[in-house]
Amino acid sequence: MARGGRLDGRLDETAEGPIRHGGDLGEAGFLFPQAPRPWIDLSTGINPIPYPWPALEASAFTRLPAKADLAALEAAAAEAYGAPPERVVAAPGTQALIDLVPRLRPPGRVAVVGPTYAEHAAAWARAGHTVVAVGDLAGIGEADVAVVVTPNNPDGRVVPLPDLAAAAAGLAARGGWLVVDEAFADLEPVASLCGAVPPACLVLRSFGKTYGLAGLRLGFAVAGEPLVGVLRRGIGPWAVSGPAIAVGRRALADAAWRREADVARGRDAARLDALLAEAGGRIVGGTKLFRTADFPDGPGLFDRLGRAGIFVRRFEAAPARLRFGLPPDIPAWDRLAAALRDAAGV
Amino acid sequence: MARGGRLDGRLDETAEGPIRHGGDLGEAGFLFPQAPRPWIDLSTGINPIPYPWPALEASAFTRLPAKADLAALEAAAAEAYGAPPERVVAAPGTQALIDLVPRLRPPGRVAVVGPTYAEHAAAWARAGHTVVAVGDLAGIGEADVAVVVTPNNPDGRVVPLPDLAAAAAGLAARGGWLVVDEAFADLEPVASLCGAVPPACLVLRSFGKTYGLAGLRLGFAVAGEPLVGVLRRGIGPWAVSGPAIAVGRRALADAAWRREADVARGRDAARLDALLAEAGGRIVGGTKLFRTADFPDGPGLFDRLGRAGIFVRRFEAAPARLRFGLPPDIPAWDRLAAALRDAAGV
Repeated sequence: MARGGRLDGRLDETAEGPIRHGGDLGEAGFLFPQAPRPWIDLSTGINPIPYPWPALEASAFTRLPAKADLAALEAAAAEAYGAPPERVVAAPGTQALIDLVPRLRPPGRVAVVGPTYAEHAAAWARAGHTVVAVGDLAGIGEADVAVVVTPNNPDGRVVPLPDLAAAAAGLAARGGWLVVDEAFADLEPVASLCGAVPPACLVLRSFGKTYGLAGLRLGFAVAGEPLVGVLRRGIGPWAVSGPAIAVGRRALADAAWRREADVARGRDAARLDALLAEAGGRIVGGTKLFRTADFPDGPGLFDRLGRAGIFVRRFEAAPARLRFGLPPDIPAWDRLAAALRDAAGV
Repeated sequence: MARGGRLDGRLDETAEGPIRHGGDLGEAGFLFPQAPRPWIDLSTGINPIPYPWPALEASAFTRLPAKADLAALEAAAAEAYGAPPERVVAAPGTQALIDLVPRLRPPGRVAVVGPTYAEHAAAWARAGHTVVAVGDLAGIGEADVAVVVTPNNPDGRVVPLPDLAAAAAGLAARGGWLVVDEAFADLEPVASLCGAVPPACLVLRSFGKTYGLAGLRLGFAVAGEPLVGVLRRGIGPWAVSGPAIAVGRRALADAAWRREADVARGRDAARLDALLAEAGGRIVGGTKLFRTADFPDGPGLFDRLGRAGIFVRRFEAAPARLRFGLPPDIPAWDRLAAALRDAAGV
């Protein structure tokens, strides 16, 4: 078993205790100090093949981001997401929006459709709201705000557009909001709400995951009226850095790269499913950037992979379940395949 | 006179109307379409000689910022500011903190010592607080929160530490907060509150201004207990980008560069004062990164400088007053000197 106990100072604290996140190898090194290096970090859903970011002009570092450049970034995002440009608000990562939005309305009742990305419930609770977990949109009852992730992390469940529209209408009628987190929608064959965001609805889109540039901190909200104005004022001036604006503009306008990434990551996801199934996994779902499976001995497999220098995502509430990001290169694929074979005793 | 009217979409909107900021040459080009290019932008207090930032590793762009790297950044800031490391919270720019802090407590009465940087009052008002402007800390009365900028922008006024400590004690006793914006303190010979932040007090320090890297978006709060924990939870995970962490760590640890900048910008500030006085200006004050003066015809001088391609900062409430950032190089100094001579009719 992995070394237990609380990793004080290494995990984010909430009222309910720490939230475990992927993507920080500090935790991996703490859990598996003897593991061979370098780590293969499969603990996130970040594209391991990043967009080839351009060299940055000095002004991206030195000057305050100009309004015209921010507007060009938002226009590129609007084009990529099929959204009207005036509905798009850029932010320093979708996490910044997840933290901000709960502070833009007085404390109320919030229903989070889950299990899902834990920061949603935590952020609403931090801002003083009463949060309940519900199994689907039909269960939101009379909540003031509902939050749903689609495709969902970690199981990939997709909520049909008509269900989202119906929930949005119900919430709008009572002054509520619907938050739809489409962080993993870019490379999926799903219909997005971005083209026609209902009133009182707010869609989140992640830049860092699709483009493999999570360090840049860039994400977007696409929001209906009048919510988009509330968000724009809430996010404040100069929220997005010069490097994020410069790289984001270029990447979001590159539809050819996105099409290639879609095909390549789809191939990777299918290959990963096959490896996981061979190792005894039952594929639960996922997206083109991560795959989730249940195993006869999830904790044991997490531990054996960790000791082989491969860090994956586990879930306290579902010990059988593990989530795998995509390996970045052939040696990493080979090490993963070997470690899964060893673990399965093949 | 400069072309009047409202610059819709170019300025930040608040409940009270647009706030005019320096540093966006979109406004300069709108006001002075015929001006010679390139612009000399003296409309900010950003160091025109940036820290020589290092080449960035790919991981700064591709990976989620690791907790250990964020902690190293905060430790470097603590060392530079003379603060205990556990009291330092990094943020994507001090503006992000100015926007966040008002949402971390229920609406109340806020006294802003002014005139000063307009975003403080605007951010508290946006979050639903009742904001009053007061002339000094003695005037804050029974406010729940007081905000003071020291050295002040634009006049350079410094509030003595004992006055800050007394105000902090009074506010703490009634559950209030004192926000001290030391954005321009790095290069000034002033005592900082960072070494011993009182309870319920929060000090803001800017990275981009001193290091000439405003595009990176990096700033810090140094806060007393228990406010520092409230802030850390409020700012959320991964708020600061990988490039900002990498560059910030290096720059904040470079005490030699900071000492040289202090001397060189002090020389620049004295030279600028001399030019402004020759042009009929009465020096009001400032810091080593900007100088503020009152002129017999402030609007006329703003206009003549603008038509000469030199953009400075004006103040609607004080038409005689103009604020000048430091020119970046010899040609810019020469153009400024010539434009001021022409304007003064010398």
